[in-house]
Amino acid sequence: MQDLIDELGRMPGVGPKSAQRITFHLLKLPREDALKLATAIIEVKDKVTFCERCFNVSEGPLCGICTDERRDTHVVCVVEEPRDIVAVEKTHEYRGSYHVLQGAISPIEGIGPEQLKVKELLGRLDPEGVTEVILCTNPNIEGEATAMYLARLLKPLGIKITRIASGLPVGGDLEYADELTLGRALEGRREVE
Amino acid sequence: MQDLIDELGRMPGVGPKSAQRITFHLLKLPREDALKLATAIIEVKDKVTFCERCFNVSEGPLCGICTDERRDTHVVCVVEEPRDIVAVEKTHEYRGSYHVLQGAISPIEGIGPEQLKVKELLGRLDPEGVTEVILCTNPNIEGEATAMYLARLLKPLGIKITRIASGLPVGGDLEYADELTLGRALEGRREVE
Repeated sequence: MQDLIDELGRMPGVGPKSAQRITFHLLKLPREDALKLATAIIEVKDKVTFCERCFNVSEGPLCGICTDERRDTHVVCVVEEPRDIVAVEKTHEYRGSYHVLQGAISPIEGIGPEQLKVKELLGRLDPEGVTEVILCTNPNIEGEATAMYLARLLKPLGIKITRIASGLPVGGDLEYADELTLGRALEGRREVE
Repeated sequence: MQDLIDELGRMPGVGPKSAQRITFHLLKLPREDALKLATAIIEVKDKVTFCERCFNVSEGPLCGICTDERRDTHVVCVVEEPRDIVAVEKTHEYRGSYHVLQGAISPIEGIGPEQLKVKELLGRLDPEGVTEVILCTNPNIEGEATAMYLARLLKPLGIKITRIASGLPVGGDLEYADELTLGRALEGRREVE
């Protein structure tokens, strides 16, 4: 029992108290229900791998987006993690393809471009006839450093490199915006058509 | 005493309980300290009016920004309230002048363009040689409606009309951004120089 508590406690967001609560909950469950959870964990590990092309999570060699012929492969949206693809897809604003770096540059954690899927991104540009790369990494220190690195790397190749906008959130209020964000919103102001 | 509690309770963010607490606190204070608060309230009402030109709060006919000769009067940043000027000034990104509408268009509250300082804005453009109007109203429903109204009104005059950027806050995370904001951040992406 302590083994299970320890293992559960290693999951993100699960502290020792939650781990204990889950364990007692599992003990009370009928055997088949607990088995379902165990099998689901094994299946996920057996079936889900990473897409060979974009490194999104995938149940086959290519992910659902890479096999979808309606997607525009001339635009590549570069994100840090597969969960960021979920976020962008929810906007229904994007019909291009993706590339998951599987992380961001972070000297403190010893993560450099070599640890990320950068080489693989470079290898896709020519064969897929990519005309625009959207740098959609997080607007925090690591994400900005990664975007800057990629911009410098890709710019000489003559491809259009864009960065998602920083600014005020929709529905927000000037009064509650931090100075940096409001500064970027002003700097990035766009002409009204 | 109940009068004071009632009056304090009318202030924004002060509920009946806080009003009572403040009242008892005032009762315990030495007379001169309570008098200071009372005098400060009277002085603010006597001395602070609105700037004749931009409708910011001011202690004279013109506010501190309008009398500052180092400010660029060819750019006007249009905001809803004087407190928004404080927010923009904190960014240290802006050296132009301002125009306070003193509200935003809100049909529900019966506020139309006539109730705002729109006529006064129009009157400033020519004499001050304004070349750009930055629509810096809040990115919520009322603020967007006001920005759209002003854009349509000013566009035919041949002045550059810009809107502050919507997007992800600096330091933010794609995962926690709402769909609308992430959609705008993608839509408003800018080419990396």
